[in-house]
Amino acid sequence: MVSLAKADILSHIENDQCDAYILSESSLFVWDHSVVILTCGLSTLIDSVSALIDKVTVDKLTYIRYQRKNEYLAYLQASTFIDDISTLRQRVPGTACRVGHLDNHHHFLFTSDKSCQIVPQDKTCELLMYHISGSVADYLCTEQQTVADIYQLLLLDKLFAGFEYDAHVFTPLGFSINGIKDNFYYTIHITPQEQSSYVSLETNVNLEQHQFDIAATLLAILKPRSWDIIGFDTEMAAPTVPKNICVGHCSYPIQQGYNVHFSHYQQTCPEVLSPEFL
Amino acid sequence: MVSLAKADILSHIENDQCDAYILSESSLFVWDHSVVILTCGLSTLIDSVSALIDKVTVDKLTYIRYQRKNEYLAYLQASTFIDDISTLRQRVPGTACRVGHLDNHHHFLFTSDKSCQIVPQDKTCELLMYHISGSVADYLCTEQQTVADIYQLLLLDKLFAGFEYDAHVFTPLGFSINGIKDNFYYTIHITPQEQSSYVSLETNVNLEQHQFDIAATLLAILKPRSWDIIGFDTEMAAPTVPKNICVGHCSYPIQQGYNVHFSHYQQTCPEVLSPEFL
Repeated sequence: MVSLAKADILSHIENDQCDAYILSESSLFVWDHSVVILTCGLSTLIDSVSALIDKVTVDKLTYIRYQRKNEYLAYLQASTFIDDISTLRQRVPGTACRVGHLDNHHHFLFTSDKSCQIVPQDKTCELLMYHISGSVADYLCTEQQTVADIYQLLLLDKLFAGFEYDAHVFTPLGFSINGIKDNFYYTIHITPQEQSSYVSLETNVNLEQHQFDIAATLLAILKPRSWDIIGFDTEMAAPTVPKNICVGHCSYPIQQGYNVHFSHYQQTCPEVLSPEFL
Repeated sequence: MVSLAKADILSHIENDQCDAYILSESSLFVWDHSVVILTCGLSTLIDSVSALIDKVTVDKLTYIRYQRKNEYLAYLQASTFIDDISTLRQRVPGTACRVGHLDNHHHFLFTSDKSCQIVPQDKTCELLMYHISGSVADYLCTEQQTVADIYQLLLLDKLFAGFEYDAHVFTPLGFSINGIKDNFYYTIHITPQEQSSYVSLETNVNLEQHQFDIAATLLAILKPRSWDIIGFDTEMAAPTVPKNICVGHCSYPIQQGYNVHFSHYQQTCPEVLSPEFL
């Protein structure tokens, strides 16, 4: 499954309920009855998902969700989301949509149409941060960065207390971490390069009932220029730091009886842009 | 030149100094010593520009500027900006850049490197409006729209007093207008369809010295969710209606001794988004 996505397994941790893999291109989590795979770059996730569907067989699959975010430089990719849903629909009937305008942050989502009861574990939240700034962002652009420092700077010991974790610092820059505790997971991926920095968090920890406001803490530390919050059966409170406006938001129900929430935030302070010479 | 861009000439007006053509895919203006061509959709502007350079010959060309905005659904286009500058650089040395992040409004610009004194006529300004709203936006989505009504609703008799004009309403929807007066021009193109509406204004009228605030008036009438202002040797005052923030801005000098200004504005009021099913 990983090699079909054009990725490699770099390392692995596990507990009684979950196996977590750091991939060369993001992360894979495997439970007895479900799988989450995230990839990035020039990976071919659709090939991996198609093969998994064929292997498991459609009859035994309860639910499939397939997501891609804004397609920038889409001509560099092996497929578009439109191509991908055509591949998926040859196997599984499903509903696909784009949330958000093409000229702004947006998100593509395919969900299978079969009715089912979503397990509580699927209360997933994603925080996608663009153009981070400040002292932690500066540190993340240094070649001396270490897993221990990043873990501490992001306050992960506090935010995800009791989680076993597996993390990598990449050369020249970049950081990935998987954390697991019982059937809960979180994964953070950092591409810190100036001009196009991006940090993603995905977790099934219930952020509404968590001791700390995980999203607010990470936003205050990483100070992104803009960010998106995507919630499946969960909604995150609007953060106040950095000072921001909600550009757009959307909530809509899917077949399995829960809501998808999408919100896009933008710092109010204008950014001084530099021309990027080509 | 027009057919190479995969466009057709629909109509034509002229005065002593300028010929102005409405094209199936935007507009063309021709003076004795300069040309402005705008195209959209699946047109192949680079083929047209390359042929023009070859015909005129590089030695006789003083200055070339080639622009494209955000490339969404770029895989549907015959070429990317990167392809286009490679084609241009086979003919003319030039500087190319992107202003604005890929995940937000941005603009691609190529300018030839030959030193020259820009003529005052080149004080050009562009106002690019996304997701218009309100009663005029609603009218522009009706099939009963007429040139006379649109001309009046946009207050063009006041904003561009004394300009001769040529305008078309398209089926099912859409509007284009060219106006000329002496060596001045303006052109407005409207794609009013909900979910992806877009209105552009381009003019060499000096907006800083004009009797009316043209940009502020059009923004108040069309109420776009977001808009960009691009100025060549001219800068537009930040508009206050609709209530907005400046997301990012950039000013940088080009070889010919003037500044390019880019600013991106966003309404502060959050937009309720609808999923667009695919």
